[in-house]
Amino acid sequence: MVADPHLAQFREQFEAALPAATLVHWPAPKDYDALRSVLGDADVLVSGDCPAEVAAAGKRLRLVHAAGAGVDGIDVAALPPGTVIANTFHHEDAIAEYAVASAILLRRGFLRQDAALRNGTWEQPTYPGLLGEATVGFVGFGHIGACAWRRFRGFGAKGVAVSRRGDVDAVAEHLLWAGDMDDLDALLETADLVVVSVPLTEETRAVIGARELKLMGPSSVLVNVGRGPVVDEDALYAALRSGATAGAALDVWYDYPADGRTGHPSRHPFHSLPNVLMTPHSSGLARSTFARRADDITANIRRLAAGQGIDNVVGVA
Amino acid sequence: MVADPHLAQFREQFEAALPAATLVHWPAPKDYDALRSVLGDADVLVSGDCPAEVAAAGKRLRLVHAAGAGVDGIDVAALPPGTVIANTFHHEDAIAEYAVASAILLRRGFLRQDAALRNGTWEQPTYPGLLGEATVGFVGFGHIGACAWRRFRGFGAKGVAVSRRGDVDAVAEHLLWAGDMDDLDALLETADLVVVSVPLTEETRAVIGARELKLMGPSSVLVNVGRGPVVDEDALYAALRSGATAGAALDVWYDYPADGRTGHPSRHPFHSLPNVLMTPHSSGLARSTFARRADDITANIRRLAAGQGIDNVVGVA
Repeated sequence: MVADPHLAQFREQFEAALPAATLVHWPAPKDYDALRSVLGDADVLVSGDCPAEVAAAGKRLRLVHAAGAGVDGIDVAALPPGTVIANTFHHEDAIAEYAVASAILLRRGFLRQDAALRNGTWEQPTYPGLLGEATVGFVGFGHIGACAWRRFRGFGAKGVAVSRRGDVDAVAEHLLWAGDMDDLDALLETADLVVVSVPLTEETRAVIGARELKLMGPSSVLVNVGRGPVVDEDALYAALRSGATAGAALDVWYDYPADGRTGHPSRHPFHSLPNVLMTPHSSGLARSTFARRADDITANIRRLAAGQGIDNVVGVA
Repeated sequence: MVADPHLAQFREQFEAALPAATLVHWPAPKDYDALRSVLGDADVLVSGDCPAEVAAAGKRLRLVHAAGAGVDGIDVAALPPGTVIANTFHHEDAIAEYAVASAILLRRGFLRQDAALRNGTWEQPTYPGLLGEATVGFVGFGHIGACAWRRFRGFGAKGVAVSRRGDVDAVAEHLLWAGDMDDLDALLETADLVVVSVPLTEETRAVIGARELKLMGPSSVLVNVGRGPVVDEDALYAALRSGATAGAALDVWYDYPADGRTGHPSRHPFHSLPNVLMTPHSSGLARSTFARRADDITANIRRLAAGQGIDNVVGVA
């Protein structure tokens, strides 16, 4: 069962890479009823979206493979014991582009200037600093953080990082320093620009709240490409609205539409704020991302069929 | 006479760097009457905006120093014979940021997605290619082109360049090839993204017209940080409107407001197009740009006072 909307364009490549006689179904995303009605016969579900009601129908599932990095949408406890959970990446180049472009846009005020010029007003610039004069703080330094940092370094920026494991080698990564989540306050005080890419766990939920946004200071910009709820929804909206935070590029959200298509992404009107770039969880969506993910996932299914060990295992139910 | 609006914030630094007893006036920009009434006593005019009516009033001018790279706003023929024309740069880091950020934005469709999400629509992405899969074509490869290319290279892009002198060393610059303006067609056919940074001269005026935009193809993006009229105004609007050109980041324009503040930048409604990032000639405007320009200009004024040769001479009236 391949229930990921982005893999469908690689259907031919995907099916050709599977063992002969593999039956592949491509149910519509978010159609949980259709998914449950056929999931009972499936060995593998390819989807990062597997709530309890779906998981419970997967009686013989052996592998649930997210088609991305995040597995927070998979209800592991509701899966048959022994089901392997795996993930895949390859979005880091695409997300690094987003992080760099959105950071420049927001720091330089180009979105605001565009809106003004469309009304015939040549808005005076505020002579902002360039990335070469900035320190970027990474909250999370996995595939995404490290790739984005390589790009920012190319502009002469300085960098600091905190990670959940606290095992980033600052010298090898050319960072000023690296620490664990206990060093978050120091990072927020140091950085002119904060890139959030940690996954959502109980430890990271709302780890950036009103107090932390205040530590960033009023000239700082936030880029969230991790998960929305890592940053407290109420506090973020209030800080952006008041100007306590200069700007934010938000690619991950609080409310996702049930149909995948329509609905505001927060209970707050972020859409009324001029200092926000808001994108529909699209920062990682590029051709190369999914072509490479299809390769990873089909390779894991071949390993499963051959009784070999699975790569990129995140957990076991 | 320092008639550049952006140097005023560095007034203290600027005046402190001049020879003792230098009289400095800071007339309001674009106030040509005020400028003409006092220009007759001035040895130096710092401004890139010196039309014939101003130039004719500068009876004893010895140096007209643009506070930027462009000298196309200085009417050299109307200046006293022997007046030296000089310019300065230091905007290349700032403009390179603009070129990279706007190229990513337009190629990935983030502006369109932002507009849609503000209306509650999660717009399906089109799985665009990343910069690492793109070839960037530089029309002009001076300070700006070379600096922008260093940034694009950091994303894994390939590059090609044409310049007026045709003297770019492709191997040293890690370009696929470099040529002169006769190679423009080949560049437009090759590039997925075209960065225009040539100055405006009779040779470059409208050098990119309807035929050239068509050579770029419908998936290409144009970034103009040179001068508006290098790209034909009618042809560009038509190509963007019809989708014959995918998108454009336009920082330089066709109509500049007489008061520097209010007015549409073209006779065409570029402001109605969703596939354009339009900015008010602000891509080079950053603190570091003007701090360094103030240093250059005051050093040249000291040289003039000491009877030494002027740096960055563009021409002599």
